[in-house]
Amino acid sequence: MIDQHIILPEPTLRRLPWYLAYVEILKARGVDYVSSTQISRAINVDASQIAKDLSFLSLKGKTRIGYEVDALVETLSQFLGFRTSHKAFVFGAGSLGTALMLDVGLNKYGLESVAGFDIDLVKTGTSVGNVPIYHIDSISNVMEENPATIGILTVPADCAQETADIAIGEGIKGIWNFTPYRVKVAEGIVMANTLIYAHLALIYNRLNAES
Amino acid sequence: MIDQHIILPEPTLRRLPWYLAYVEILKARGVDYVSSTQISRAINVDASQIAKDLSFLSLKGKTRIGYEVDALVETLSQFLGFRTSHKAFVFGAGSLGTALMLDVGLNKYGLESVAGFDIDLVKTGTSVGNVPIYHIDSISNVMEENPATIGILTVPADCAQETADIAIGEGIKGIWNFTPYRVKVAEGIVMANTLIYAHLALIYNRLNAES
Repeated sequence: MIDQHIILPEPTLRRLPWYLAYVEILKARGVDYVSSTQISRAINVDASQIAKDLSFLSLKGKTRIGYEVDALVETLSQFLGFRTSHKAFVFGAGSLGTALMLDVGLNKYGLESVAGFDIDLVKTGTSVGNVPIYHIDSISNVMEENPATIGILTVPADCAQETADIAIGEGIKGIWNFTPYRVKVAEGIVMANTLIYAHLALIYNRLNAES
Repeated sequence: MIDQHIILPEPTLRRLPWYLAYVEILKARGVDYVSSTQISRAINVDASQIAKDLSFLSLKGKTRIGYEVDALVETLSQFLGFRTSHKAFVFGAGSLGTALMLDVGLNKYGLESVAGFDIDLVKTGTSVGNVPIYHIDSISNVMEENPATIGILTVPADCAQETADIAIGEGIKGIWNFTPYRVKVAEGIVMANTLIYAHLALIYNRLNAES
């Protein structure tokens, strides 16, 4: 049994998906065992760090053989929550919101977009793939019929806070923020920021420094 | 004159886009001046930290008046590289790659996707918006005709490293990695990882811990 209720440190949660991506590739290639040294060489993380991270999952490698690849894939996937379906609302049906609703990759990793919301009357009433798009004013009804716990924010920065407040007011427990706005939430609400614009700025800045 | 060649610390580069998003909203509302205390309250960053970050840009607030909003917007945008066009190739024309090619938001922030690459013959020869999709084998020719410095990786994890190697071999200087694979690059190549799956894992983990 895997206990998904352990709070993991953020750096560990950042590294575990790297291990998973790598061992999934090994699995597809028919490899049976992998050592932490091998993982370390492949993904540039210290072998002792890898062993430590994996011990959170009660995974221990065998001397001279290493970790069983199948078990690693399964345990990491379950532990990271990728084997469980998590329902999400997508706020903003622009290009990014639409892409996230269509992304089968996210689906494979346990994220199920059950509804999209927008204020553009041209978009509301339509659907993106199988995901129906509603006007934000209908959120109470949608939440009642097809509840979600995660709210994905892809709205313009100037309505990010307001949209998050509405979503949380309706029962959303976790916000995944793709806007450049620093959204504030009450304690107990989970918040993850995917900093698209900060990453752009980082690339530009480092490229300029090199040139 | 703004010196874009200063190497900024990563935490500062993470915060500056937050300040920009907020002052852009103020600008749209017709606000002329803003203090670091106000920015601090709005986005939950310490006022002294804000003043320190902005001093990198030689921006100083005036006593009792604060910073000029217009100047903040302009200086931050220029300094972050958002006012300069940076050409990019998008590797992988799946749902995420397509979204990034279509995203006008990125365009506004200085990123111009000039070509997409895929190995799917159904996609090559078509275009996404105005962005032509080529087979990866044509990259040398495309680079010659329409060179880019940034490579955006949205390919499956098992071809992430190979694709990055090809891109860098053709002259790409910065990799923006959206795959869950930990891509390795030589020194001098700029690397930014947008950890979609790590953020998902973080949200799942924290939601489970709350429940």
